[in-house]
Amino acid sequence: MPDTLVRNAAGRDVVTRINGNEAVPYLGVGAFQPTGRKASPPIARCADYPSDGNKQVPDLKTALVNAGLRDGMTVSTHHHFRDGDLVANRIFDIAAELGIKDLRWLPSAAFPCHAPMIRHLESGVIHHIEGSMNGPLGDFASSGRMRGMGVLRSHGGRYQAIQDGEVHIDIAVIAAPTADPFGNANGVNGPSACGGLGFALADSQYADRVIVVTDNLVPFPCVPWQIQGNHVDFVVVTDKVGEPSKIVSGTTNITRSPDRLFIAELTARFVQAAGLLRDGFSFQAGAGGTSLAFAIYLKEMMIRQGIRARFVRGGSTKYLVEMLNEGLTEYILDGQTFDLDGVRSMRDNPRHVHTNPFVSYNYHGKGNVASMIDICVLGATEVDLGFNANVVSHSDGRLLHGIGGWQNCLFSKCTILPIPSFRDRIPVIVDEVMTLCGPGELIDVIVTERGIAINPLRQDLIDATRNSSLPIKSIHQLKAEIEAICGGRPDRPDFTDNVIAAVKWVDGTVIDVVRQLA
Amino acid sequence: MPDTLVRNAAGRDVVTRINGNEAVPYLGVGAFQPTGRKASPPIARCADYPSDGNKQVPDLKTALVNAGLRDGMTVSTHHHFRDGDLVANRIFDIAAELGIKDLRWLPSAAFPCHAPMIRHLESGVIHHIEGSMNGPLGDFASSGRMRGMGVLRSHGGRYQAIQDGEVHIDIAVIAAPTADPFGNANGVNGPSACGGLGFALADSQYADRVIVVTDNLVPFPCVPWQIQGNHVDFVVVTDKVGEPSKIVSGTTNITRSPDRLFIAELTARFVQAAGLLRDGFSFQAGAGGTSLAFAIYLKEMMIRQGIRARFVRGGSTKYLVEMLNEGLTEYILDGQTFDLDGVRSMRDNPRHVHTNPFVSYNYHGKGNVASMIDICVLGATEVDLGFNANVVSHSDGRLLHGIGGWQNCLFSKCTILPIPSFRDRIPVIVDEVMTLCGPGELIDVIVTERGIAINPLRQDLIDATRNSSLPIKSIHQLKAEIEAICGGRPDRPDFTDNVIAAVKWVDGTVIDVVRQLA
Repeated sequence: MPDTLVRNAAGRDVVTRINGNEAVPYLGVGAFQPTGRKASPPIARCADYPSDGNKQVPDLKTALVNAGLRDGMTVSTHHHFRDGDLVANRIFDIAAELGIKDLRWLPSAAFPCHAPMIRHLESGVIHHIEGSMNGPLGDFASSGRMRGMGVLRSHGGRYQAIQDGEVHIDIAVIAAPTADPFGNANGVNGPSACGGLGFALADSQYADRVIVVTDNLVPFPCVPWQIQGNHVDFVVVTDKVGEPSKIVSGTTNITRSPDRLFIAELTARFVQAAGLLRDGFSFQAGAGGTSLAFAIYLKEMMIRQGIRARFVRGGSTKYLVEMLNEGLTEYILDGQTFDLDGVRSMRDNPRHVHTNPFVSYNYHGKGNVASMIDICVLGATEVDLGFNANVVSHSDGRLLHGIGGWQNCLFSKCTILPIPSFRDRIPVIVDEVMTLCGPGELIDVIVTERGIAINPLRQDLIDATRNSSLPIKSIHQLKAEIEAICGGRPDRPDFTDNVIAAVKWVDGTVIDVVRQLA
Repeated sequence: MPDTLVRNAAGRDVVTRINGNEAVPYLGVGAFQPTGRKASPPIARCADYPSDGNKQVPDLKTALVNAGLRDGMTVSTHHHFRDGDLVANRIFDIAAELGIKDLRWLPSAAFPCHAPMIRHLESGVIHHIEGSMNGPLGDFASSGRMRGMGVLRSHGGRYQAIQDGEVHIDIAVIAAPTADPFGNANGVNGPSACGGLGFALADSQYADRVIVVTDNLVPFPCVPWQIQGNHVDFVVVTDKVGEPSKIVSGTTNITRSPDRLFIAELTARFVQAAGLLRDGFSFQAGAGGTSLAFAIYLKEMMIRQGIRARFVRGGSTKYLVEMLNEGLTEYILDGQTFDLDGVRSMRDNPRHVHTNPFVSYNYHGKGNVASMIDICVLGATEVDLGFNANVVSHSDGRLLHGIGGWQNCLFSKCTILPIPSFRDRIPVIVDEVMTLCGPGELIDVIVTERGIAINPLRQDLIDATRNSSLPIKSIHQLKAEIEAICGGRPDRPDFTDNVIAAVKWVDGTVIDVVRQLA
């Protein structure tokens, strides 16, 4: 039986209840006014913790039992190890051993390495997942086999949901490349170094119980303490928390595709033509091949023009680190780290600022970094005529990606999506996106190899680039050209009425839903 | 009319209500079990803050008005500028201009530079002060002229009270040597650099409204961000936030008194004899002349014996910085900074760990740093036969000092009070302390120039030092010897029944009260 749906402010029919809890339909950008106060964790006291600061217990099972793991609880993990995570699966294997059922797993993201969770979803150990389900888990959910409804949130939205008490974490498990017996932890040192641990910040602050798992125990104090031991209940030492070769995923190679290099170059040229390349400016570019290529074109322009950035928002990569070392940016603000040069620089260079979703992305804060960024370059699976974009589902209808920081980054002063005009002969610009992840009013520019479309809301950008040599077109024109090449619009996949996941907006409202494939 | 008093677990008659709110009498060390959850600030949203991150308003008055300042509110400040603070008085001058009454002032400490507040206490702008009242304000309170009851808390107790919702801050004003327009702030840079800003952490996290006042505005990002702009509502730029020459107070000179040097040396010898000087050990010594001299004797021993500390807890001083630079300690954990060498080193040397009362002292956390410290050296105005100690009132009965981190530090593995046996011919060891600030069970050793007394509860220390050449005596013997020199016990001052201040224990319970002088 389908959930009761209501039409939200974006014209999408969305659920009003998620796994039994009330959900507010999306009201528009900046329209939802939260009332109430932040979540408040239980008051602890030192008398209940070892006075010598040693919180070690023999193993993860003991820690989970001591933390009171039981049916129906919410257990959270972070994804700084990306596809090299060796801890999350073990938590649920232990839960299975203990006969625990109906857990809610709240990862900051899941990767293909977490495919073994399907077994626990099928057996009932895990009731459902709230968090990015990249690859196999998204595919599993799309097939309608996950019992509960998935919830997709941005990095900032995850912080917001935890902070606001929308999601209560019973037990947070924080895998850490380095920690001390008190629970202070960081990601910059140790054999499994991954850079930051910021995605686990909310978990450490708001969970009832916090377990730190490390393969590199150092004497107190573990410095820097990206996670503070004063939030931690138990510390577990284990063989290996992450597979170093997979921690830094294969997303950090510059594209070799001539089309994508051209898109990257066009994007950099647009930025320059629009007058956004100013001394003291800031930008954020993800770790995808096109984004990296954009950063390199931008770097060349900066050198030619003697322009220096005030800061760049990472994921750090060797390309950003080079810019830092060459004095082209004063700071890198790191949210995560995509390669080992990034990890090393973050450890050794004090001009890396270790950030987290509270600082960068949380929409229910007194401002955040995302809206201060001059230029933000992001990807998308689809864009529609209203500049609305999709990042979670493929053209075949399967849920295959998480939102990451994407929604949060849309608040930058100029958000640009450099995307190929088609993939596998399927146009990327469509009448209406299959899954709405970002409202068009926040997406300023679409750059494809066949032309650039500027959102009509940004008359300033249209005016600034009017006399440039750039191939600027209306989005309708661009769409028509692409369809002509691809031979028309493709058929859309068939869905059932069953909602398998809700897509949250940065303020916790429901902007869209994902349905089961027929 | 005196408040209703009840006898607490330390045998002290204490109030059960403070300024109309219920208060729990002290139950013993580790005996009070908090229930409930932490305080929860209102949920904010980015839509209500400037998207370019610029939260500047023209002046402090505008900020206070915009923050909604009105009668009966609680306004907090920090004391990192010590006796050189130029901001706190201005807040209440503005409040007076605006005709506001009955404010509660919650400084992390007040200094003689805050004597102008007496005018506002007399006129009714300020109802009462909760926080250390060093010097003139303590004297004013002792005379019974403050309308409300003062509340004295340790640094950790102040964090605990704010965190637990015992004290709700309406408006926090954070004076910052450096800040950016978003509100990120630090104390290590700028003409008024004072080191850290940790005493304002709780204020930034839990206050409804947070105002940052700076005399050194830098472009975003202000790095390090000891205070995070995501907690900040308004930023004000002003001429000068602190008087540099007074920020580092005159407490950081090594004593020249032969008696005190001897006490310091005895203390260091005790530490060695007791076997506490081990590789990887930790210690904390305050900024008083005797404590500094102790650190220097200790340093000499460490060099002779090739011993290296894992960490030292500051207030940083040039003496600790030298130890760091000479490799005698791996880290300094800074809570505050007492001289300019300390400030510079904290800015430039990454082996300073910037701490705050949450990390170091909060008793209602999952452990804290204080209890992990091997040796802690502290002062006292009086100690009694039960090893109980007083740090807030003088022998003449006046309230003249704050608690600082003193109560929190008592939880170290070995707490030593090196104190002169008498001051102005008044014995420091008494039958019963005038004001109980620290329970004797946590005070391990008293070192005077006439001998050392070890708490009978520490049989381990008694055994370890039995065969040393140290002048170890019972506290009764020590007291008798001192009285013989001073010509007996002095008369105690006369008090009225009027309670002018409550002394909180680290868990928020009332350990003692201070009465009005007759």
